[in-house]
Amino acid sequence: MLPEVLQTIDSRRHQSVSALTEFLSIPSVSTKPDHAADMRRAAQWLADQLKFACLDVSVMPTGGHPAVVAKNRHQAGRTTVLLYGHYDVQPPEPLGLWTTPPFEPTVRDGAIYARGAADDKGQVWAHVEAILAWQAHGGPPVNLTLLIEGEEEIGSENLEAFVAKHKADFAADIAVVSDTNQFARGVPSITYGLRGLAYMEIFLTAASHDLHSGLYGGAVPNPANVLSELLASLHTSDGKVNLPHFYDEVLELSQAERQMWEGLGFDEAAFARELALPFLSGENGFTTLQRKWARPTCDINGLTSGYQGPGAKTVIPAQASAKVSMRLVPNQDPAKIAAAFEETLRERCLKNVQIKFARHGLAPAALVPIDSAAMKLAAEAVAAGFGKPPIFMREGGSIPVVGLFKKELGVDTLLVGFGLPDDRIHSPNEKLDLECLFAGSRTAAVLYERLSHLPRRDKSLPVLPARTR
Amino acid sequence: MLPEVLQTIDSRRHQSVSALTEFLSIPSVSTKPDHAADMRRAAQWLADQLKFACLDVSVMPTGGHPAVVAKNRHQAGRTTVLLYGHYDVQPPEPLGLWTTPPFEPTVRDGAIYARGAADDKGQVWAHVEAILAWQAHGGPPVNLTLLIEGEEEIGSENLEAFVAKHKADFAADIAVVSDTNQFARGVPSITYGLRGLAYMEIFLTAASHDLHSGLYGGAVPNPANVLSELLASLHTSDGKVNLPHFYDEVLELSQAERQMWEGLGFDEAAFARELALPFLSGENGFTTLQRKWARPTCDINGLTSGYQGPGAKTVIPAQASAKVSMRLVPNQDPAKIAAAFEETLRERCLKNVQIKFARHGLAPAALVPIDSAAMKLAAEAVAAGFGKPPIFMREGGSIPVVGLFKKELGVDTLLVGFGLPDDRIHSPNEKLDLECLFAGSRTAAVLYERLSHLPRRDKSLPVLPARTR
Repeated sequence: MLPEVLQTIDSRRHQSVSALTEFLSIPSVSTKPDHAADMRRAAQWLADQLKFACLDVSVMPTGGHPAVVAKNRHQAGRTTVLLYGHYDVQPPEPLGLWTTPPFEPTVRDGAIYARGAADDKGQVWAHVEAILAWQAHGGPPVNLTLLIEGEEEIGSENLEAFVAKHKADFAADIAVVSDTNQFARGVPSITYGLRGLAYMEIFLTAASHDLHSGLYGGAVPNPANVLSELLASLHTSDGKVNLPHFYDEVLELSQAERQMWEGLGFDEAAFARELALPFLSGENGFTTLQRKWARPTCDINGLTSGYQGPGAKTVIPAQASAKVSMRLVPNQDPAKIAAAFEETLRERCLKNVQIKFARHGLAPAALVPIDSAAMKLAAEAVAAGFGKPPIFMREGGSIPVVGLFKKELGVDTLLVGFGLPDDRIHSPNEKLDLECLFAGSRTAAVLYERLSHLPRRDKSLPVLPARTR
Repeated sequence: MLPEVLQTIDSRRHQSVSALTEFLSIPSVSTKPDHAADMRRAAQWLADQLKFACLDVSVMPTGGHPAVVAKNRHQAGRTTVLLYGHYDVQPPEPLGLWTTPPFEPTVRDGAIYARGAADDKGQVWAHVEAILAWQAHGGPPVNLTLLIEGEEEIGSENLEAFVAKHKADFAADIAVVSDTNQFARGVPSITYGLRGLAYMEIFLTAASHDLHSGLYGGAVPNPANVLSELLASLHTSDGKVNLPHFYDEVLELSQAERQMWEGLGFDEAAFARELALPFLSGENGFTTLQRKWARPTCDINGLTSGYQGPGAKTVIPAQASAKVSMRLVPNQDPAKIAAAFEETLRERCLKNVQIKFARHGLAPAALVPIDSAAMKLAAEAVAAGFGKPPIFMREGGSIPVVGLFKKELGVDTLLVGFGLPDDRIHSPNEKLDLECLFAGSRTAAVLYERLSHLPRRDKSLPVLPARTR
């Protein structure tokens, strides 16, 4: 049956792009309150497509943006596969840097350009196409449960409670997530490690109102000066994160992993060139791949204070704020790191400046043994879908759901991603290569077939979040 | 004649407030290009009032916003007084903190609230009222030349060339500027020292576009991190500005000045309380008045980078920028300081991050001997206008025109200000007390009369800019 399914996928390429274009046209930016209606529209659009694929679909409330949950007709004795993705996208700003508008999907040079093309609507759509194709030939040979959420880009804040509440609905033998990259074009990949995240915001307030920098300068604390000092204090001169006990639990790389990564032939010069950087930089003593995949970071994501218009305003701002996120590695505890961040900055802060914090998402890192039964089946699917066996890589991003599924459902996750490193996710001109979309659908179709052979509840070689929260 | 002039001023209080309300209603924000028409409207409105006072008025192009230039009928043998002010105002943001809108002037509790009320439209208007009153009684007893510019809040960039080009038109025996404060309510004051200014902007660029902080974090330079480090490097831990040779030329306070300032009885606790600060802070080893009036500073006026909306965006910004201004004291050279700022930060900057600079205004500090003939006449005028002899103070702000008039015209400047320290200039809820407006007009009227007795071109005790640029 599989050859026919793959042939159906190949014959529907035009329709696949056309449907994805519709999906990408909906500006489902989860972080912005004024896009709430777009979020509901995107969820409903996806639900309608899944209904067309003969699935039983619900758009379910979560306390935040709704989740789309769908199942084929489950049959006893079959492997149950939980497929996770997200229909929300990052904000598209800065708009001026997009060649074509972020929510007017455009195909050029063999890729579709739009916010969400790779992260994650395009990868979700690759699966939907696979399901549609299977449906045309009697349905997938596994029990499928789809959970497509709307809050991944804002830290999946309601997902844990939602999954916990509907545990029975999400019972599964294995989970599949397609929200990662291949290592390079022509190098299909399976991801076995992810970094975690602790996303913080700092708010400083000094005087009750903005002050004239001539009349008051020198006499009063300037929260923008203080913010700079606090932020600068977050790193040592050799590029390490300067918080107490930050590295205490960091899992060091094994010799075997170092060697495997060296064998990938990562081209640092090409990587720098693509970003228009004269050279790369970061924590001393590690290669670029090691810094991206296995070392924790602390990056400022946003700075706001005082006058931001053209020209000059001689003002001492009353307030200053920064968004700061730390990527975490296996064994680091996000809650502990977040607490240390707050406590340390509070201590370092000038005592006549008020400091407050917000947390925008905590997630532990994840690490997966590469020799499990499920991994082997996934590798066969990628080989069939992309025409070449995959390599095994880690990725620097965070997919909090991996830890969550392990904790709440006892289910391990396969990270089978179809994107490419130059897809510019979270950046202007995000895209997905159409060849990746089509190979992704083929891979998904084969994966359902292969996973039908998975020993049920194979717990011997589990997907391990580095630490259960 | 003077008693009649003062009586006219007193009888026109209502009209004075009404006219000032019109002036303040025009949003003449010089730094914002979209207010160019408002700038022209404000200049024309002022020109119309001065014409009504029988002055010969021109709205003159400058290369930037126009300047309003006006003269009464000059007579040989009379003292010529050059009166300088500005009709442009600071941006009103943040708008949400104004009790009443910044360009809808409102009188409450004996003060008029609007952007520009004290800085500088209200003080300019105090003079116009004095001229109107004199005009009703035969005209002022001096040759008046008014130069009211539209670019003071953006560093008076075109003023130097404008004054140099029209030198003959601005020839004068003495200049008068009313753009400063009294020391406190009930303590009329003459300002004998001002700080200078070097207003810089820093622009950092790293990668060619915003990057995903998971996929790239740790591998690439983050310009927001680098900016924080550069800005933090601008101060030492004891609050000194950390640029090479920054303090080399700083004129230290004399013992006599220290004692005079101690005698002013500045209430640090009340000052902190008014700003809602638990305590004050700044450079170690100096009193608050010393830090405000006689010590140089370095304050961040604006910070911009990355995502500034609500919630989280996991982005490594491609760009980061900061507006930073240094207040300078007598003998510091603004051009030398600006160059050292740029050179030092360029050196300190990570070499795979591009750094660029803009300069938004350079001005030297000014210091005036308090025992000149002109100062004595000004003190008599303030005593008559406010009913109490003035004290002598410095101020922390910058009025670049003082150095400019000395350099281009060889003319010294009297700083006779009518504002109060709590006028919140450059802040939300800027105001001018009506009693200050009226006393200001009286002071101006008396000042013209007193200056008619000034020995012409009294160069023996000049107003000294600390250093000619």
